[in-house]
Amino acid sequence: MKLATLKNGRPDGQLVVLSSDLSRCVSASRVAINLQAALDDWTRCSPALEALGRELDAGAIAGQSFDASEALAPLPRAYQWIDGSGYLSHLERVRSLKGSKDAELQSDRPLLYQGASDSLSAPHDPIVATSDELAIDLEAEIAVIIGAVPMGASRERAAAAIRLVTVCNDVSLRRLVVDDLQNGFGFFHAKPSTAFAPVVITPETLGASWSDNRLHLPVRIEVNGALFGQPNAGTDVHFDFADLIVEAARTRNLAAGTIIGGGTISNRHDETLPIKRDGIGFACIAEARTVEKLKYGRARTPFLKAGDTVRIGAVATDGRSIFGDIFQQVSIV
Amino acid sequence: MKLATLKNGRPDGQLVVLSSDLSRCVSASRVAINLQAALDDWTRCSPALEALGRELDAGAIAGQSFDASEALAPLPRAYQWIDGSGYLSHLERVRSLKGSKDAELQSDRPLLYQGASDSLSAPHDPIVATSDELAIDLEAEIAVIIGAVPMGASRERAAAAIRLVTVCNDVSLRRLVVDDLQNGFGFFHAKPSTAFAPVVITPETLGASWSDNRLHLPVRIEVNGALFGQPNAGTDVHFDFADLIVEAARTRNLAAGTIIGGGTISNRHDETLPIKRDGIGFACIAEARTVEKLKYGRARTPFLKAGDTVRIGAVATDGRSIFGDIFQQVSIV
Repeated sequence: MKLATLKNGRPDGQLVVLSSDLSRCVSASRVAINLQAALDDWTRCSPALEALGRELDAGAIAGQSFDASEALAPLPRAYQWIDGSGYLSHLERVRSLKGSKDAELQSDRPLLYQGASDSLSAPHDPIVATSDELAIDLEAEIAVIIGAVPMGASRERAAAAIRLVTVCNDVSLRRLVVDDLQNGFGFFHAKPSTAFAPVVITPETLGASWSDNRLHLPVRIEVNGALFGQPNAGTDVHFDFADLIVEAARTRNLAAGTIIGGGTISNRHDETLPIKRDGIGFACIAEARTVEKLKYGRARTPFLKAGDTVRIGAVATDGRSIFGDIFQQVSIV
Repeated sequence: MKLATLKNGRPDGQLVVLSSDLSRCVSASRVAINLQAALDDWTRCSPALEALGRELDAGAIAGQSFDASEALAPLPRAYQWIDGSGYLSHLERVRSLKGSKDAELQSDRPLLYQGASDSLSAPHDPIVATSDELAIDLEAEIAVIIGAVPMGASRERAAAAIRLVTVCNDVSLRRLVVDDLQNGFGFFHAKPSTAFAPVVITPETLGASWSDNRLHLPVRIEVNGALFGQPNAGTDVHFDFADLIVEAARTRNLAAGTIIGGGTISNRHDETLPIKRDGIGFACIAEARTVEKLKYGRARTPFLKAGDTVRIGAVATDGRSIFGDIFQQVSIV
């Protein structure tokens, strides 16, 4: 099952079910008024949404053509956005020049931070910042939307709660990371609105691409139209989504509609930019810069400036962007 | 205007308008399906809700008796919960034994952390933790619920966005604070579900008790029925709610329904527990313990254990608990 949320002038948008090829969609309002409502009552709604998708694929209902530029984030506002850190090589690269805090703790239990979820960006929304002096960075991640998980849940229960999978861009203002961490209260200003791909897909529909609680597909990142990275989201995963959910639920319940990010995708390699057509590259600028500093003594790749564009999409084995692309341009206000 | 959310078997509960004396209430479902919906469309809903309150006070509609034990948190799940730190003496006391991180930064700009908002506790919900070895603490705070605030908002705009005021208990697991802060990613496990008083009140209705973007009333805290503190929430405020909102909106928009906590209420004094009937005392156990360590060489006041109770309420000049009391018992699961 593939779902999206379209703009309709309301904060939570219009839930639609997509055809398998993402070309067409049909309103799901007879099943649930929005995606959160469907997640609140998944046992009832999920089969009805799947039935709509089958009818659409069979041509039994016409639906309308699907325009990804009309999509909001699947949950345009959510009750919780937790970002984890599943790929240790991201932490290793980003922290290598700053001095790691506690390497053992990181490999033992995943780091999590509580992110803002009150306004999540649409796939084609601009990246809005007050200045490009803030070292604006992208972070391409896999994200899952879950059902309710009780405190102290097992890995099995955590895995079974994964309802939907997608890709997101956890935009970071690197210049503010140090301030935020120095405060001791965690990320706040350094993490403005996270953007999401237009389409969310159930693990079942992802088939062989989803196993072991991770997505086994490359995520392609372009900056200003040039290939920046295409790391495989299923490679070098130290903490999978079951691990992240178990850790998030260690001291509290998680409500239905909680979104969990898997952390900046990061594969181990010794490349620097520009990468070759079959290279791996990076899912954030900070990693590329850190590697450059170590190799050349200084960072060469600039952070994002006004007008720069970022494209992020998970690539299926047949080359399609399976969740649709995130495509954002930096706007300084 | 005074509002509450009653249990109705649905995640967002039933919005009701209260009589001035909190004795009676009337369903607001003809105006808005829940409090978030009212906040989304405040210009239309607010006058209609006020009219309901006037009719209830005048006896033009009967309504039903209001039972605070049937109340959920005003927003049982919210799109954002940001906790600030408006009272420097709280930070000074709590950090005095650990070594402050950056005292100048704290007095220049308020600290904020992004809290979990996916399930906020009802006023009479238990404080649930997995072990009372976690050093369970209360934190009595004032909280405001705001309308939408754009990035970079002025103090005036921030102040004008304050829709509703109440009291909350930002439960903390002190033993996990150090872990969380050491991770560098901020509070996560150390801050389980925050509890809210049953009633929210508009600044206009609070009258003289609300001025200069702060509540000028004592908040009374009892632990196991004994007076623990009654600091005045309007005294020793270093950052008022306009300051906190401006800081929260420095790098991003804030959506309608965002809840902002003012930080643990803390007045400057040199008391230790037990306090006299007219004493000031403390709004969290950690402060009481820190003062004891400095005075006696060791902490005497224990953290909360299974079965312990906490009562928190803001006290009006006539002695009434104006938002109703938070009354929670610790439950170890």
